[in-house]
Order: sequence, then structure tokens, then C-alpha cells
Amino acid sequence: MNERYLIISSDCHAGLPCEEYRPYLDPRYLDAFDDFLAERAANRSQALALNYDYIHDWESTNEEGLRGAFDSDQRDKELDADGVAGEVIFPDADAITGMESPPFGAGLSAGAIADPELAFAGARAHNRFLADLVAASPAHRAGVALVPVTHDVQRGVAEVEWAAEHGLRGVMIPTMWHDRPAYHERSYDDFWAACAANGLPVHTHSGEAPRDEYGDHIGIYLAEVYWWAVRPMWHLLFSGVFERFPDLKYVVTEAGAFWAQDLKWKWDVYMGGGHTTKKMAALMTGKLSTLPSEYFGTNLFIGASTMSAEEIRRRHVIGCDVAMWGTDYPHPEGTWPHTAERLRRDFASVPVDDCEQLFGATAARVYGFDVATLRGIADRIGPTPTDLGQDPARRSDPADVAAAQWWKAELA
Amino acid sequence: MNERYLIISSDCHAGLPCEEYRPYLDPRYLDAFDDFLAERAANRSQALALNYDYIHDWESTNEEGLRGAFDSDQRDKELDADGVAGEVIFPDADAITGMESPPFGAGLSAGAIADPELAFAGARAHNRFLADLVAASPAHRAGVALVPVTHDVQRGVAEVEWAAEHGLRGVMIPTMWHDRPAYHERSYDDFWAACAANGLPVHTHSGEAPRDEYGDHIGIYLAEVYWWAVRPMWHLLFSGVFERFPDLKYVVTEAGAFWAQDLKWKWDVYMGGGHTTKKMAALMTGKLSTLPSEYFGTNLFIGASTMSAEEIRRRHVIGCDVAMWGTDYPHPEGTWPHTAERLRRDFASVPVDDCEQLFGATAARVYGFDVATLRGIADRIGPTPTDLGQDPARRSDPADVAAAQWWKAELA
Repeated sequence: MNERYLIISSDCHAGLPCEEYRPYLDPRYLDAFDDFLAERAANRSQALALNYDYIHDWESTNEEGLRGAFDSDQRDKELDADGVAGEVIFPDADAITGMESPPFGAGLSAGAIADPELAFAGARAHNRFLADLVAASPAHRAGVALVPVTHDVQRGVAEVEWAAEHGLRGVMIPTMWHDRPAYHERSYDDFWAACAANGLPVHTHSGEAPRDEYGDHIGIYLAEVYWWAVRPMWHLLFSGVFERFPDLKYVVTEAGAFWAQDLKWKWDVYMGGGHTTKKMAALMTGKLSTLPSEYFGTNLFIGASTMSAEEIRRRHVIGCDVAMWGTDYPHPEGTWPHTAERLRRDFASVPVDDCEQLFGATAARVYGFDVATLRGIADRIGPTPTDLGQDPARRSDPADVAAAQWWKAELA
Repeated sequence: MNERYLIISSDCHAGLPCEEYRPYLDPRYLDAFDDFLAERAANRSQALALNYDYIHDWESTNEEGLRGAFDSDQRDKELDADGVAGEVIFPDADAITGMESPPFGAGLSAGAIADPELAFAGARAHNRFLADLVAASPAHRAGVALVPVTHDVQRGVAEVEWAAEHGLRGVMIPTMWHDRPAYHERSYDDFWAACAANGLPVHTHSGEAPRDEYGDHIGIYLAEVYWWAVRPMWHLLFSGVFERFPDLKYVVTEAGAFWAQDLKWKWDVYMGGGHTTKKMAALMTGKLSTLPSEYFGTNLFIGASTMSAEEIRRRHVIGCDVAMWGTDYPHPEGTWPHTAERLRRDFASVPVDDCEQLFGATAARVYGFDVATLRGIADRIGPTPTDLGQDPARRSDPADVAAAQWWKAELA
């Protein structure tokens, strides 16, 4: 078999230049929006002062393609050229200077907004834009609505209903809850119920972190930003959210996937009552209906973006039915506009069936893509296994899959 | 070679039943102490209500040995019987119901104390007790002084000086800084300088976590408690503390060691400017003088306690010159009173030279134990490689050590 891969990027970004969100914003927030825009401009000047050469080089080299952040035709053209048939769309298309962020920072840092009114106003402006963008090319695009639920659960429920009615296919919640209720609280149950009922996976996406604890030390941010994005996963799992809402899916995106190995192992040990956790075992009884690792691929998924070589080697412990590859278009740390080359470099020795899952099949299942239509697109633009330097006949060895979760034998 | 192992437990605990700290406490805090004791009793009742069978079984089976928490002769007897020649001593000997904790919770949760006066008063009471305990058997014991430095840096410096003068050999700082300055702040520099000048390694020890964000979900606590203990490591490293104080040692104790693998890899990648971190690379320049992984074994160490099978398999990526095994005496999740059996189960297939480092040599170096004296003790009580089911002639393969840090070849 050497048919073209059906590639769905589980992590793409779209957004208007911030000032152009104006027509999507409820008019009563326009004064606050003007104040916000002035601050934004200062942020860009500061970013440029710190890192001018890198930013200038990226923006000038890719000027046309970067317009795909908001221009529907350009976007399809870029993804086609990159071999990507479908995509999952998050906000904040400008990852360097933050110019294409939703009003009031309602994208990747929505939890940090002080005023709930502004958090929802910014989110709704983006969601309206996103619904238009998705409607312009619906087969390609799964849009993830912004729902700053920490600020108001019932408004969050209403926004989920709106998103589902307007063709959006996931919701993103704030990564950090700050001084509002933590995600284990029962007060969120109406929201989880609405997401499950509408088949919208809940997301956190990396970006936010308690920067006020880091000084100017970017290394501290890098060392822990992924953890803050993943953190809601265990808060949901161990507080029993998936027991109450078994159809709910939670996806953590662009926070790596490497950590899933240790986390599945350690969590299974906690629940399995090993000697060192024995004193806790009695307190855990009845909280979960199966081992934590079993929730992966059913309730828990990972938008793994551009996986590292080591993450690809760990694919069987992470799960090819859990991790979803992504280009991170149009961010500079992603693979665009050189996706086929990167796939060839990173996946040449990986069996075809694993790639089919990582590149598209898992995302198709999680987001409910119309696979027949995407197949038609992929047949035109997707790379073949041969294009990626692979042996088209190579298949994964089931023994490798079983051996990857080494601790299961030790627990037994 | 089949000589007896020199075992130093890098993680033991000692403490008086809380009310018996009274003679060690500055008299002006006695009223506050009475209030505190009343609360403690309520905590124990609550713990017993939740987990009676487990607690009762442990306490009644080990009644005599548990007295070693504060009784010097009993303590030496227990460690001798366990084959352990030397030990590093932390507070909070009662890990279940918290009855042997320093006044005002000044042990493993010192950061959470509201009043700096009480934080230091509780710490000083424990430090006085600990200095007496160490003086009763100084060859065996490296005592770790409590220094709640987040509450007051200059009092912290004074306590470091006191600890060094009174024969203590390390300091423990609060795991969490709460609303006080984060550990990257320059305001701590006098404290790091004092620790380095006195040769006292700085410790965090697991236990504290933001429990007010967990509800009653113990699984959430288990999933993240280790992270809070390790977190100061990257705050010190990436804010350049070891550039300013190259002699400073930092040890994270009883928070596992498994995480060191991913953390060394990821940190080296951040500093090595891989594609995905390129946009950050310019901001990192000049912050560190070498790769982050190189600080392990020089400035960074791990009190790994009772290592899991997987952590033992990862010993070359973690570093046998980094991780220090420990019994966690007298905690129920540790190996006491069955240490030799546990070592035989866990280390039978591990080469002798690796075990020598993990069991004692690394700790001897970090804490400045008198190895000649300890050798004499070990020759009497330590297990031999044959006792542990090992081939006494087996040595580690240098190729395995080099291969373990797989990312180094990819960075080059």
C-alpha cells in the first residue's frame, strides 16, 4: 500500500490582526478595545527590541503565507502546498509578538483576564470570526471555540451551545484557573455536560504560565510552561469528571507528548497500590473505574504538534491512538512551510500504520472529520510513504506495542 | 570484590512527638504552641477516621522501632539492623498523622505558615533537637536544618551560620514560596552565599503542594506533589544561581528521580537551540555557562529514596553520581525494617560499582561524611553483593552510560 497519507494537523492557529476583530466585537466594548490595542502595540515594540533579527527574518520571508492566518483562500493554498488535508484551529496566529490575538487577550491567556465581561467579549469576537473562517472551507477545518469558563460557568454553557450550532468542533478553556474555582469543582459539571452532549472535545493549549514568578528568566518559563497546560488533565481525571461524563474528551495541545510515558506509568502505580503508595491506596478506592492509563485514547488525547524524535520513538507508550501530529501553522516553531521535508526527516523509519494514526486517523476520530471528503483532498495533495522515504509495506509489531507499557507486567 | 556495601540513606526522618518540642522552643511562643497542639490532635483523629486499619497496623507492628524517631540508641539499633551505616535526617518522622512534626508545621510545610515569627520559632526548636540528636551519634548522622528563608532572608542567613556551628550538614528551605519572593529573586543571594560558604547543601523535600486547589481528591495531590518539590531546581538553575555560587549544591529529596531523564533532555534542547525553540534561543544566550544536564552531579543532586525498578533502570540517564538511595526510615512507604530484602529484590541485577555510588558514595561526597569511620561501621553491618544476589565481579559498561543520554548525539 502506497496511497497518500491523509494528514490532519491537530494544531494550527488562525486570527485576525487584533484591530480587525472590531466588527466582530459587541459595540459596548469598543472603548475598552481601544485601550487594549494601545497596549498591544507596546508589546510588539518590546518583542522586536529583544529579538529583532529573528522576527524580521521570519515575517519578511513568509509574508504571503502568513496572511493565511485570516485569509481563507491563502490558508487553503498554504495547507495544500504543505500536504495537509485537515486542520484543528486554535487562536493566536502570531506566536511571536501577539498581534493576531483575540481582543483582551481572550486566546491563550484567557484565564488571566480580570474582568469576566471582557473575557467573554473577546472570546465571542474570535468565535464569530472563526465560524466564518470555518464556513468558508468546512471540510478542511475544525474550529476550536474559546470559552473562558472559569469566569462564568453558565455563560460558558451558552457559548458551547452557540459554538455547536455554528459548526465549531471543540472548545478551549483557560489553562490556568487563577483565583477562580479549580477544575475539580462540581460547579463546572454543567459545562462538562454541555461539551459531552454536543460532542465538543475540551482543550487546553500551552502558552499561559505564572510569569510573575519567573522574573526575566525565559528558561524558567520553558521548563514549566508545558506542565501548566497538561495540569487540568489530572484534575479532571482524578476528580472523577470522566466517571460522570464518560463521553467527554479532553485534549492537551502543543504541550509536547513526552510526559505521557511517565504520567501513565506513575498514575497506574498510584491506583495499583504499590508498596510506596499503599498508605494512599485506601483513599483512592472507588474514585476511578479503571487504571488511569486506560483513559488515554478514550477520554484523554494529545495534540502533539511537531513531535520530537524521542516522542516518535515513544509512540507506543504515548499511544498512536492518543497523540495527534500537527504543523503548528503559521507559527515559526512549526513545520510549515517545509512539512513534507520534516516528515521525511522524522518519520522515515516509522511503520505506515503508526503514521496513519498519528498523522490523521486519531484526529479524524476525535474531531469527527468527514473522512470521505478529506480522503479526496488527501489523494490530491498528501505525501505517500515513498515520498517520506518509508517502506510502504512496513507495519508495526504488536509485540512492541505491548512491551512499551512496561509497568503493566510489574503491576500484575 | 565482595566487601560490604557502605550504605548511607539519603532520606531519613527524625522528630519528637510534637508536644515534646516544648523545652526546645523559645518561651515567648508557648501560648501559640498550646493552640497549635490542640489543632494537631484534631488532625490525627481525622486521619485515623479515614484510614484506621492501615495506621493501626503500622503503628502497632513497629512500636519499638518507631521510637527511633527521637530516641538515639533505638535509632542506631534500627539502622544497624537495616544495614545502613549513615543517614541524612529530615523532619516529620510521622508521615501518616503528622504527630512528630516541628511546632507550627515548620517541617515539610514551612512555606505555608502565615507568621514568620512562628516559622522561625518552630524551625529553631527542631534544629536544637536535631543538633542534640546528631551529637549523640555524629559519625552516622547528617542533620538537615530547617530554614524557612522565604519568611526572612537575613534570619535565614543567621540560621545557616548557627546550623554550621552546631554540626548540621544541610539546610531545608520551603518547597513553595507562596506569596513571598520566588527563588529566582536576587534578594536570596546572601542566603545562597551563606550555604555555599558553609558547605551546606540546600534541600527541598516533597510534601507541600497547593492542596486548596485539590478538593478531597488525593489523586490530584499524588499526581503533582513531586513537581512542587522539584520546581525550585529549575528556578535556581535558569536564574543563574549556580553561576553566581558555583560551590552551591541543591538536593531534591523524596520526590522520585524518574523525571530527571526528561528534564535533562528537554533542558539541553532548550539551550541547544533546536528548531522548535529557536525563537527562544536568542533570549537564553549567556544565562548558563554549560548545558543544563552538566549541572547534575556538580550542583544538582537527587535524594531518590526507595528507587522504583524503572528508576533503577534509568540510573545512567539520571546519574549514579546524582541519585542517592534512601530508606525513608521511619516512614511506612520506605524499606525499613526490611531494607536488605528490598535491596536484594531491586538491585540483584545491578553492577556493583553503580550500587556503590547509589547506596553511599554519592551521598558521602555531597554531605561530607567521614568515610573512614563509616567504613568501619559498614564492615560490621552492611550487606555484601552476594547477600543481594549480585555477581560481585559485575561492573557497569561505559558504553551503556554514554548511550543513556541519547539526546547528546542529536544535539551535536
